[in-house]
Amino acid sequence: MAKGTSKVRVAIIGASGYVGSELVRVLVQHPNVEIAALFADRNAGFSMSEIYPHFESVSLPKLLSTNDVNWASLDVEVIFCAMPHGYGQKIIKELVDNGGVKVIDLSADFRIKDESVYQDWYKFKHGSPDLLKKSVYGLTEFLRDEIKYSSLIACPGCYPTSVLLPLYPLLKSSLIKIQDIIIDSKSGVSGAGRAENQKNLYSEISDSFHPYAISEHRHIPEIEQQLSIAAGQLVNITFTPHLLPMSRGILSTIYVRLNDGITYSDVRNNLNDTFMNEPFVKLLDDKIIPQTKMVKGSNHCMLNVFEDRYPDKLIIVSAIDNLLKGAAGQAVQNFNLLSGLDEASGLGALPLFP
Amino acid sequence: MAKGTSKVRVAIIGASGYVGSELVRVLVQHPNVEIAALFADRNAGFSMSEIYPHFESVSLPKLLSTNDVNWASLDVEVIFCAMPHGYGQKIIKELVDNGGVKVIDLSADFRIKDESVYQDWYKFKHGSPDLLKKSVYGLTEFLRDEIKYSSLIACPGCYPTSVLLPLYPLLKSSLIKIQDIIIDSKSGVSGAGRAENQKNLYSEISDSFHPYAISEHRHIPEIEQQLSIAAGQLVNITFTPHLLPMSRGILSTIYVRLNDGITYSDVRNNLNDTFMNEPFVKLLDDKIIPQTKMVKGSNHCMLNVFEDRYPDKLIIVSAIDNLLKGAAGQAVQNFNLLSGLDEASGLGALPLFP
Amino acid sequence: MAKGTSKVRVAIIGASGYVGSELVRVLVQHPNVEIAALFADRNAGFSMSEIYPHFESVSLPKLLSTNDVNWASLDVEVIFCAMPHGYGQKIIKELVDNGGVKVIDLSADFRIKDESVYQDWYKFKHGSPDLLKKSVYGLTEFLRDEIKYSSLIACPGCYPTSVLLPLYPLLKSSLIKIQDIIIDSKSGVSGAGRAENQKNLYSEISDSFHPYAISEHRHIPEIEQQLSIAAGQLVNITFTPHLLPMSRGILSTIYVRLNDGITYSDVRNNLNDTFMNEPFVKLLDDKIIPQTKMVKGSNHCMLNVFEDRYPDKLIIVSAIDNLLKGAAGQAVQNFNLLSGLDEASGLGALPLFP
Amino acid sequence: MAKGTSKVRVAIIGASGYVGSELVRVLVQHPNVEIAALFADRNAGFSMSEIYPHFESVSLPKLLSTNDVNWASLDVEVIFCAMPHGYGQKIIKELVDNGGVKVIDLSADFRIKDESVYQDWYKFKHGSPDLLKKSVYGLTEFLRDEIKYSSLIACPGCYPTSVLLPLYPLLKSSLIKIQDIIIDSKSGVSGAGRAENQKNLYSEISDSFHPYAISEHRHIPEIEQQLSIAAGQLVNITFTPHLLPMSRGILSTIYVRLNDGITYSDVRNNLNDTFMNEPFVKLLDDKIIPQTKMVKGSNHCMLNVFEDRYPDKLIIVSAIDNLLKGAAGQAVQNFNLLSGLDEASGLGALPLFP
Repeated sequence: MAKGTSKVRVAIIGASGYVGSELVRVLVQHPNVEIAALFADRNAGFSMSEIYPHFESVSLPKLLSTNDVNWASLDVEVIFCAMPHGYGQKIIKELVDNGGVKVIDLSADFRIKDESVYQDWYKFKHGSPDLLKKSVYGLTEFLRDEIKYSSLIACPGCYPTSVLLPLYPLLKSSLIKIQDIIIDSKSGVSGAGRAENQKNLYSEISDSFHPYAISEHRHIPEIEQQLSIAAGQLVNITFTPHLLPMSRGILSTIYVRLNDGITYSDVRNNLNDTFMNEPFVKLLDDKIIPQTKMVKGSNHCMLNVFEDRYPDKLIIVSAIDNLLKGAAGQAVQNFNLLSGLDEASGLGALPLFP
Repeated sequence: MAKGTSKVRVAIIGASGYVGSELVRVLVQHPNVEIAALFADRNAGFSMSEIYPHFESVSLPKLLSTNDVNWASLDVEVIFCAMPHGYGQKIIKELVDNGGVKVIDLSADFRIKDESVYQDWYKFKHGSPDLLKKSVYGLTEFLRDEIKYSSLIACPGCYPTSVLLPLYPLLKSSLIKIQDIIIDSKSGVSGAGRAENQKNLYSEISDSFHPYAISEHRHIPEIEQQLSIAAGQLVNITFTPHLLPMSRGILSTIYVRLNDGITYSDVRNNLNDTFMNEPFVKLLDDKIIPQTKMVKGSNHCMLNVFEDRYPDKLIIVSAIDNLLKGAAGQAVQNFNLLSGLDEASGLGALPLFP
Repeated sequence: MAKGTSKVRVAIIGASGYVGSELVRVLVQHPNVEIAALFADRNAGFSMSEIYPHFESVSLPKLLSTNDVNWASLDVEVIFCAMPHGYGQKIIKELVDNGGVKVIDLSADFRIKDESVYQDWYKFKHGSPDLLKKSVYGLTEFLRDEIKYSSLIACPGCYPTSVLLPLYPLLKSSLIKIQDIIIDSKSGVSGAGRAENQKNLYSEISDSFHPYAISEHRHIPEIEQQLSIAAGQLVNITFTPHLLPMSRGILSTIYVRLNDGITYSDVRNNLNDTFMNEPFVKLLDDKIIPQTKMVKGSNHCMLNVFEDRYPDKLIIVSAIDNLLKGAAGQAVQNFNLLSGLDEASGLGALPLFP
Repeated sequence: MAKGTSKVRVAIIGASGYVGSELVRVLVQHPNVEIAALFADRNAGFSMSEIYPHFESVSLPKLLSTNDVNWASLDVEVIFCAMPHGYGQKIIKELVDNGGVKVIDLSADFRIKDESVYQDWYKFKHGSPDLLKKSVYGLTEFLRDEIKYSSLIACPGCYPTSVLLPLYPLLKSSLIKIQDIIIDSKSGVSGAGRAENQKNLYSEISDSFHPYAISEHRHIPEIEQQLSIAAGQLVNITFTPHLLPMSRGILSTIYVRLNDGITYSDVRNNLNDTFMNEPFVKLLDDKIIPQTKMVKGSNHCMLNVFEDRYPDKLIIVSAIDNLLKGAAGQAVQNFNLLSGLDEASGLGALPLFP
């Protein structure tokens, strides 16, 4: 934080997407932040309230083009980047190489450590592969120490956040088998962004439900990478994402097998110990079922574990708001960490129900 | 069918629930049916259009109470019963014992062959256990011969229909393992019926998603019973139903393991052979994903099979309209069979999109 | 109808929009129709089921481009045109000038009789102004005789249909004042079509409601033209359309003033007399309120009239399915008329509820 | 505020309804409030998070029954009452008569000044008519001085808030005619509360739209009372409420006539002057249309005025979140005023979009 002031100056690149606007919403209400600049190449020249009228009541800098900025002279301490994958690699390289500023990236570009895996799944060569080693995966609850001192945070994807929060500790403690992890995830459509797309029209999505990208979703390598780190060995998953007829929210239903001798109670206790002091992750009481509406508009994750009818299997359910804990909220949580602020600062909003 | 007439006279018991009204909607448009009587104990005395204004344009018999009827003198050939489980057992026993009339039951009461299993899951003693042996499980595509000559059809539940259509032939042909079948199903809320229930209020369901009855749903024994018949040995499943923020539609995502030496193509070919001449079940082309909206308002089932990233596993997806193929539509399909009519008669409605 | 056959051969231009696909859905189930050709310039070469998987179960001609057709040699009796306004004017002129084929246009192009009014509202010069006199406005219930013998039907817009059905007879009978007619209409978003448009994304429309095109909607001149014909003098209206967070359905709430000496009962009786024998328009019983869900999926219009607290004012409410009675359904009703078929042929589908 | 502390101690009666829970949500995040007690007769004994899991993360007092409390010994300064109308009259009388505590009532019980009007519309005799003179109508923006010093605030209804904000100043300044005010309002279904009601089931409300209580809604006398005060003479309205297929939000489309010589600009300037310094009411720029989604989750009102095609008429559109500016938010705004706090304290949440 700058000396003599209580506010950290930040910029947001990609401010006019859903994730970008959610970052703006959270940060403009954050007591320790000053939004110094907003970038949105396609909407440069407009004000945020022209693009999103819900910002009518707040004063915000005009949207700028990243083509018109001299990054070196931009007086900010932290830059959030919420561009689609592939678009921010050069800018982020310049920012990190220049030094001084810290970058919190919300795209997939710096999550995958292995350049060739990135290329396999994203279908083009990474533009700044040397940064892959520098970047820290921003799964806050498990990587606080690394996040605090990093200059490049790669915030987790929305699906991975919902999956890793419960599975990471269980694999780390060797409570569940590394085989046969089946993840059936369901997401609201805001995750697809604000780009025009026939498939995301109201009349197509409403009253409907379907899986997509079966066995091909790009969050698979990210989830497997982190689960493998937790397990200390290669973990493979089956992952099926689905699109829900609603805007916000992800719920993952996860089927796992217990290691020999491990019981439901062991798992419950592990999750309880892991999250009991976490401000944003809540293991619900026995048999209480997470619902996406119970976390909408908040940075919370609600999770619980249920006995299957077969004693060696468990069913884990986790729910988050994909735009908050799954994107902008977790990014701000990481921002708080690396800015030396209270980790929950600016993230106190309770879920909006109904 | 009565001599000298082209119409089969039918009655519907439980006509004022969602399934009952859907039966009325289908049957009133059926070219070979005359609706002779409608029963709805709680709404006796009202007309259907007072209860459901979408019937304004059709002429229907007034709703009667089952307490006021002399079943023996009711001049009908087939009776559909769409009461909640437990309510119709005595009436159906009387009807079947009297003989003459055929009964198509849409409740769960005559699906489970084992009286004690029924009691375990439904928590009370079955009132007409002797009928359990007489009843035929009305999964039309696989049990046509039995259905044709039965006097008591127990129509499958909505979830079981979506699950059994793809799994029954695969187990019968020993293509998939009987272990580790994981069924992650998602249903629209119309399946919960029209009864007042805080949990089903618009403000609770909209914008939300969650599982329920994890490992405890009453469709489990029904699914397992039929899969075991298909496999010729005991099959156990993991089953997690979820509630979607929409009214109509069920989609089941099913994770299965291949038997040794069996490939994706074997499974595809089997399903293709099984359903290629079926009027209502469609195996989609390679990689085309079923969506609930693509079957809404029709008796269709859309299904497809997808390769997992692991060669010994497959992902099967099936979609139906829970009120039609999952209830009233399949009941009418069975009715057509046992009345000697074209199986698709009255069921030609295409899905309503968007 | 072709000699020696019971089927009328038809073509549909613009088959891949929502209205076009709804035409296909209705016509493919129509007992007296054979769909001979489907045109969709942007999707030429695809099958309908590739564009709309809900057509999986039916056999349909491949989509063609209008650029590749020789209209003169196309062996059809009726052509439905469901292109956006402005796009079909030349084709329709060629078709009508060639003679032989009858054209049912669902765009706005031939609804406005005054070429300059068209230009004022649609912002470009009409391409076939000579046809404006030939075309008949296809408001079936009031213009049957003209429709029967016309070779060019201009089907009414969705909002106009919901408004004209109740107001046309009341103005014709001089029961209501021509001043101060206020029409507050609300439409589902399917009316905006399947074109990619950020404003119609699920995340923008869901959970939201707002008016649009206030005092500027292009259905205004069409409504005023027909109301003026009914009244025999110029009628002006106030019209505010709104967008509902749902796909299908229009409900118009209409505020009118009674002429001196006219009562609520006079209006009720007039509407009752007007519509008592209509197959698709239903004046509901006293105090029963129309709901869009009660007509969804049908060609029905539900309407009713309510007393305001002030004896000289009334509130009229009408509900239709915008894609059926407001578009494809009414077009087929007109088709039946000019083909000498039963007016309700192929339109018997009851509303889909819930 | 109590000496030596920065927190005002409050209690909430009726905490388990949607409005009550929204009060809890706002107040638990309010920097100057301590929630000392929560009452919910039907749910007494439960914790808030058992009734509403979205409160999992906060510590709240257990729900109590109002039958078990000694009001005199309850150590609070302000009591919010969010019971259904009719239920809180006796309790509130006791509280006000005892003195000391201030009461903010969110029911309709103390809004209507004329006891007989109350009885006409609410169909029973008012239980504490002497309080009607004492109570102040809590329309914050126009009655600040009265609110500050009152001990009983009757918070406006949701529809009235959306209507009065624009109309009150226009009538006060005699810019619009008192005749022919037509209010066409549309509300999300959360306004109907959490009580079990078949009409509010998801399957009934979704995909549907309809008016209700035409000319009979109980907010009519409340709106007319306040408009008459503003105009200095009796004002009558035409009011039609509608139910939207969404949970939160009200939008009112209001049709008014200008007084002679008054123009659109005069009205615009008046509204601009009235609201330019208001924290929560925003007159949008020329031609920008209010949308409910742009205020969801906030205490904001977005409004705008539009020219009709006839120069003597205007169309006014206003949008609020019915549970916030239309209920709990405005109540807290009033609470801030009478507690000597910044009026916007605890109400800074920006709208949640998308």
